[in-house]
Amino acid sequence: MSNLLNLQQWLEEQSIEVAFIHSTENVFYLTNFYNDPHERLMGLFVFRNAEPMMVVPSMEQSQVLDTGWNHEIIGYKDHENPWDSIRASLEQRELPKVDVVALEGDALSFNRTMSLLDLFEGAGAVPVEDQLNEMRVVKSEQEIAIMRRAAEMADYGVEVGVAALKEGVTEMEVLATIEYELKKKGIREMSFSTMVLFGEKSGQPHGNPGERALKHGDFVLFDLGVVLDGYTSDITRTVVYGEVSHEQRRLYQTVLEAQEASLRISQEGTRVGDLDQTARDIIDKAGYGELFPHRIGHGLGINVHEYPSMAHTNNARLKAGMTYTIEPGIYDERIGGVRIEDDVLVTKDGHETLTKYPKNLQVVE
Amino acid sequence: MSNLLNLQQWLEEQSIEVAFIHSTENVFYLTNFYNDPHERLMGLFVFRNAEPMMVVPSMEQSQVLDTGWNHEIIGYKDHENPWDSIRASLEQRELPKVDVVALEGDALSFNRTMSLLDLFEGAGAVPVEDQLNEMRVVKSEQEIAIMRRAAEMADYGVEVGVAALKEGVTEMEVLATIEYELKKKGIREMSFSTMVLFGEKSGQPHGNPGERALKHGDFVLFDLGVVLDGYTSDITRTVVYGEVSHEQRRLYQTVLEAQEASLRISQEGTRVGDLDQTARDIIDKAGYGELFPHRIGHGLGINVHEYPSMAHTNNARLKAGMTYTIEPGIYDERIGGVRIEDDVLVTKDGHETLTKYPKNLQVVE
Repeated sequence: MSNLLNLQQWLEEQSIEVAFIHSTENVFYLTNFYNDPHERLMGLFVFRNAEPMMVVPSMEQSQVLDTGWNHEIIGYKDHENPWDSIRASLEQRELPKVDVVALEGDALSFNRTMSLLDLFEGAGAVPVEDQLNEMRVVKSEQEIAIMRRAAEMADYGVEVGVAALKEGVTEMEVLATIEYELKKKGIREMSFSTMVLFGEKSGQPHGNPGERALKHGDFVLFDLGVVLDGYTSDITRTVVYGEVSHEQRRLYQTVLEAQEASLRISQEGTRVGDLDQTARDIIDKAGYGELFPHRIGHGLGINVHEYPSMAHTNNARLKAGMTYTIEPGIYDERIGGVRIEDDVLVTKDGHETLTKYPKNLQVVE
Repeated sequence: MSNLLNLQQWLEEQSIEVAFIHSTENVFYLTNFYNDPHERLMGLFVFRNAEPMMVVPSMEQSQVLDTGWNHEIIGYKDHENPWDSIRASLEQRELPKVDVVALEGDALSFNRTMSLLDLFEGAGAVPVEDQLNEMRVVKSEQEIAIMRRAAEMADYGVEVGVAALKEGVTEMEVLATIEYELKKKGIREMSFSTMVLFGEKSGQPHGNPGERALKHGDFVLFDLGVVLDGYTSDITRTVVYGEVSHEQRRLYQTVLEAQEASLRISQEGTRVGDLDQTARDIIDKAGYGELFPHRIGHGLGINVHEYPSMAHTNNARLKAGMTYTIEPGIYDERIGGVRIEDDVLVTKDGHETLTKYPKNLQVVE
C-alpha cells in the first residue's frame, strides 16, 4: 500500500482533502485490486486525513478483501445507486470542508464528475492524473520483474507465429495459433488485439487480420503483447516469407537502423522527443518520411499505452526505471510495411530491451 | 447512413445545433466506422443544418473512407492537438450560435467535455446518450442477422469447451482451445474475457480462470461471447463433469426453472423489471435468494452490456426488435455455481433465443 500512502502524502502537500480514483489501472496501482467493472461504478476515495474507502459492485467485495484491503468497502447491488451509499458514508465521517476534489479528468466521465462534485457542495475539480502518471512512470524492481516476464511471453508469441508460417496459411490461423499457445502458458488476456498482417496488408499501420493467405515474397508483420499480473508487453517484428526483394530489404534496413539509433540514445537524461526525432531523421533521409505517420512509441506498464507519449515534441527527460516502446515503421501500400518494436527499460547506465526476439532480417522458408 | 439522418432529425426536433459523438460504439452505429482509438481522440460532429465531420488520427483516415464516408474528415498527427484543427474548421463553417452541445455524458471524459464546450462560447451540455440508446435498442433486420451469426459462434464456443473436458485439464487449457477454434473461424475478438470455471471456482460470479484442474463431480461454467461485424454475443452454460450430486441437481434445476420462467414472459409489452422479478421469486422460494447477487440481464448489441439494464426496478416495456440476455445464477462458494444465459430477441408474437446450445442438465463423461 505504499503507493496509496504516497498519494495521501501528495494530498497533504497540496492541501487537497480528497481524491477519487476509478480507472482500472490506477485503482490497481494503489490497491492491487485489478478489476474491469464495465459500466458499473468502481472507485477509490483517498482522503488527506481519513481512512480510504472503496466502492464496488457487491459481487466483487470478496475479491477486494482477497487483496488484503482492510479499510471501508461500500458494496452496491445492480438496482441501487452507489452515489447514495457514498453520500451516507461521507456524512458519517464528518470530514473537513472540501473545496476541491482531485479526479482523473481524462478517464472520469462528465456524468460521474457531476455526481462526484455533487457530494461536496461548491467543490471544484483538480487533476490527479499528472501526479499518478509521475508516480507510475518510474517502475519498482517488483514491477520490472513482472514486465520482464510479460516481455518474454511476447517474444514467445512471435516465435510461435514465425513457426506457424507456411504457404497458404491465413493471417487469422497464425493469430489463433499464437494466442492458443500463450493461453496454454496461462496468459488470460492479450494487451490489445493481436495483429498478424501479410504482404500489402502490412502496409496499413492499423490493419485488421483476416483471410489473406500467405504468399511467397510477403512481408509478415506481428504486433502483439500480453497482460501478466497486471502489467503489459508490446512487441512488433516483421519477417519476409520465401524471398526478399531489394526494395523490401532497403525498407527493412531503414527501419532497423532508425530503431537502433533511437535505442542507442535511450538513457537517463535524454530528451524524450529526441527518441522520435533521431529515428525520423534517418527515415526522412532515406526518403520514406511521408510513410512514417506515427510517434516513435509510448510509455508501457499497467496500460499498454501510458504516459509519456513519445512524439518529437516531448521535452521531458528520461529517468532510470522508465519503460516504453520504440517502434518506428514505414508503410508502403504497395509492397507492405515494416515495423520493429521493443520494450525498453532505462537503467542507471543506459538501457535494456525487455523484448529479446532477434531483429536481423529473417527470411522464413 | 440512415441512423445519422435520424440523429440529425432529433437535433432538429430539439433545436440543438450540434452533437459530439466519440464512443467506438456510437460512431460505428452512425457511420459504420469501427475503431478503438485507445487514448487518441476520435469523434463525430453531427450538425442540425450542416454536413457532419469526423475527427480521427491521420493514420485512420483511409479506413474511414473505406466505409463510404464522403463528408469532411479532420486527420491529426500524434504531436498535433486535434482541438485546434476542429476549431479552425468550425470557424470556416459560420455556424449559428450554439447554446448547447449534445454529448455522451457517460462516455466523454471530464477533460474532453471541457475542450469541447470551450469551442462554443457559453454553451452548456445536454445528454445525447438517451436518444442513441432509444435508437439502438430496437434492432434492424440487418443487425439481427449479424447477431444471429454472433450467437451461433457463441454456441460453437460452448460446444468446443464441453468437448475439451477431461480429467485433469485446466481451466486455461479449455479456454485456450475454445478461443483457438473460434479464431480459426475468423473471430478476431471475444466480446469479453472468456470464463471457464471449475468446481468451487464457479461459485464466484466473476471468478478468474486459472490452473485449477478438472475433477470428477465438478460444475463447469462457461461464459463467453464473440464480436462479429461489430455486434456481440454472450452465452453462459454450466455442465457437470463425471457425476452430479443431489445438491448440484437441485441448484441447477432452480436456475433453469428461473431462466425459463423469465424467457416465457419475454414478449412485447412486458415490464422489463418483471423479467428479473419472475426469476428472483423462483430462486427466493427455493431458498437461494441470497446467492443470486446480480440483475437478470442486460441489453446486447454493439456493446456486450448496453441499454437497458434489466434489474427488477426497471419500469420500461419490452418492444419487438429488442435484444438482451437472460442470465440468472446461484453461487455457492462450497459446491460451486450455476448460471444459464441466453441471448433473446423480442419478436412481434413472443421471443426467440438466438443462442441455441441445449440447457438440460448435461453430465459430461
